[in-house]
Amino acid sequence: MRTLKVELGDRAYPIHIGSGLIDSDLLATVIRGRQVLVVTNESIAPLYLDRVVSALKDFDVATVILPDGESHKHIGTLDVIFSEALTQRFSRNATMIALGGGVVGDMVGFAAATYQRGIDFVQIPTTLLSQVDSSVGGKTGVNHRLGKNMIGAFHQPVAVFIDTDVLTTLPEKEMSAGMAEVIKYGLLGDDEFLAWIESNVDLLMAKDAEAISVAIERSCQMKADIVARDEREGGVRALLNLGHTFGHAIEAHLGYGGWLHGEAVGTGMVLAARLSQAMGMLSDADVARVIAVCERVALPTEPPAGMTPDDFMTHMAIDKKNIDGRLRLVLMHSLGDAYVEDQAPNELLLDVLNACCR
Amino acid sequence: MRTLKVELGDRAYPIHIGSGLIDSDLLATVIRGRQVLVVTNESIAPLYLDRVVSALKDFDVATVILPDGESHKHIGTLDVIFSEALTQRFSRNATMIALGGGVVGDMVGFAAATYQRGIDFVQIPTTLLSQVDSSVGGKTGVNHRLGKNMIGAFHQPVAVFIDTDVLTTLPEKEMSAGMAEVIKYGLLGDDEFLAWIESNVDLLMAKDAEAISVAIERSCQMKADIVARDEREGGVRALLNLGHTFGHAIEAHLGYGGWLHGEAVGTGMVLAARLSQAMGMLSDADVARVIAVCERVALPTEPPAGMTPDDFMTHMAIDKKNIDGRLRLVLMHSLGDAYVEDQAPNELLLDVLNACCR
Repeated sequence: MRTLKVELGDRAYPIHIGSGLIDSDLLATVIRGRQVLVVTNESIAPLYLDRVVSALKDFDVATVILPDGESHKHIGTLDVIFSEALTQRFSRNATMIALGGGVVGDMVGFAAATYQRGIDFVQIPTTLLSQVDSSVGGKTGVNHRLGKNMIGAFHQPVAVFIDTDVLTTLPEKEMSAGMAEVIKYGLLGDDEFLAWIESNVDLLMAKDAEAISVAIERSCQMKADIVARDEREGGVRALLNLGHTFGHAIEAHLGYGGWLHGEAVGTGMVLAARLSQAMGMLSDADVARVIAVCERVALPTEPPAGMTPDDFMTHMAIDKKNIDGRLRLVLMHSLGDAYVEDQAPNELLLDVLNACCR
Repeated sequence: MRTLKVELGDRAYPIHIGSGLIDSDLLATVIRGRQVLVVTNESIAPLYLDRVVSALKDFDVATVILPDGESHKHIGTLDVIFSEALTQRFSRNATMIALGGGVVGDMVGFAAATYQRGIDFVQIPTTLLSQVDSSVGGKTGVNHRLGKNMIGAFHQPVAVFIDTDVLTTLPEKEMSAGMAEVIKYGLLGDDEFLAWIESNVDLLMAKDAEAISVAIERSCQMKADIVARDEREGGVRALLNLGHTFGHAIEAHLGYGGWLHGEAVGTGMVLAARLSQAMGMLSDADVARVIAVCERVALPTEPPAGMTPDDFMTHMAIDKKNIDGRLRLVLMHSLGDAYVEDQAPNELLLDVLNACCR
């Protein structure tokens, strides 16, 4: 087991990475009270719920099984969690455990942030994407029909348990989606890591335990460092949204659940690279390299059929990074060196979208 | 104008108290961005909305008018606020203004706490109750059908503007409800203030400007001091809930909107005094004094007809102050000296409820 720490003062917490952590004895040690609500979804429950509950035999444990999928990530689904906690008369001293992918983690984190004005929660992410990204950093929330992740809170978990064994049951498509976020860390701040990913991509997609552990640890370390420097996204944390502004537009356009989040981010990173090229920062070869690594992990690299530049512009106009109505994008000076751009020329953006939309 | 400060480090904020503050030039100075969403209700809108909007002529202002009443303080009503903000494409740099009583303040505060994971908000409380209590301290939230204020967040305003002139339009019943919270400050921590209230109760109920200003300032100062010592209610802040555990049970039993919050708190304080007496801490004369001051401000001092001790016990079992299922009540060692009691003998509690319920 490897343990990283997210350095956030009195909200600091550990990220444990290793084999068999889903029912580790460590889990019981991070829970303060006696009441625990384990929340998962209908796909994960038959695989892992019993094991987590069995690791909590000294607690008053209740469970909630949510429907699976991004389309359920809205404020109405939260009520299922609140109602169970209130029916069980769980107090402010209770702990929620999020057992699942990013959707479960975001919703349970937000439920914990707002149940009785905030209680503890633990992340046990079961997809590669949530292991390397959404389970770390305290961003929680739900979608609104007018925008993705528009309602939420910053609420840090008390611990994150990343069990690398669970990836054996993860569908290929979800592996690809997770790899999008792994590639993102290389592109945004570490060209050596990008080269390492390119060299090890076949091992990673074959779920080689050692390669996957390295990729997860390096991704989590980068995210932990960035979050420690900028918990509430006043500055450097915005870089973690590389590919996400375009990606969110794709997800909003398709209706949540059309593409996986990671798939949309894959295409979003390609679009960010193309705009960076149009603005004279990346070379043709750089863009080709971004497309190639995305293709090798089986990510889409073009917008969905039928999506127009207008569709992109409409959805991107309500992105959370925007300030006073001005569009802010994460672009790249070079591969491994991203920055926030709020002066991207509109005509170049439209050129790129016109060239890519089919 | 008098100005107090809530000392919370980088979340410190001023409370301005005075005549004519609702459209003061000061309002514009506390707003960071250009986008402002003013949220009020259908009773307050015709009285004061235009004046607030006119004080914001240099901003992009949108308005939301909610239905009036505690029965609308639920998560569904928040969607009206979120939808307007998203339709206007308001960013994380936008500010929400809560113009109204406690229900509006709690809902707008929670909407601001969770819109794009948290934006600025300003409180302009228009009832005595919200001026002396709910607009200060950052407790925000909504009710759940299984419990009052069960969903929420701690989110401090950037400023509070208390315009004493608005009380001229406040119904008598709402004055009484507000006086419940004023009396609470005396009972929980300041016997001199309690005596001052008793001496000035007729002036206060006649809305005498000077007396009301003193009552508001002294109440806000006490709340500000307590909040500064314990923002998230780990300790001393719980004292502010004197009368509230019983009161919430009454509100939950009647369905929200049956009694005003302050009315329920009035009876709740009498019940807390009676239990303190049963436990040997208060004298008969002390209890009589609590009942008398509540009666002089026209507050109910007995539970609603038909409410049983069982009803109380059921609703109090899910109070947020409870820890691991143990009931915690705010009681009084003496008038002006409250404390948190988690060992109140159940039989004495039932005796008091049996004696008071009709």
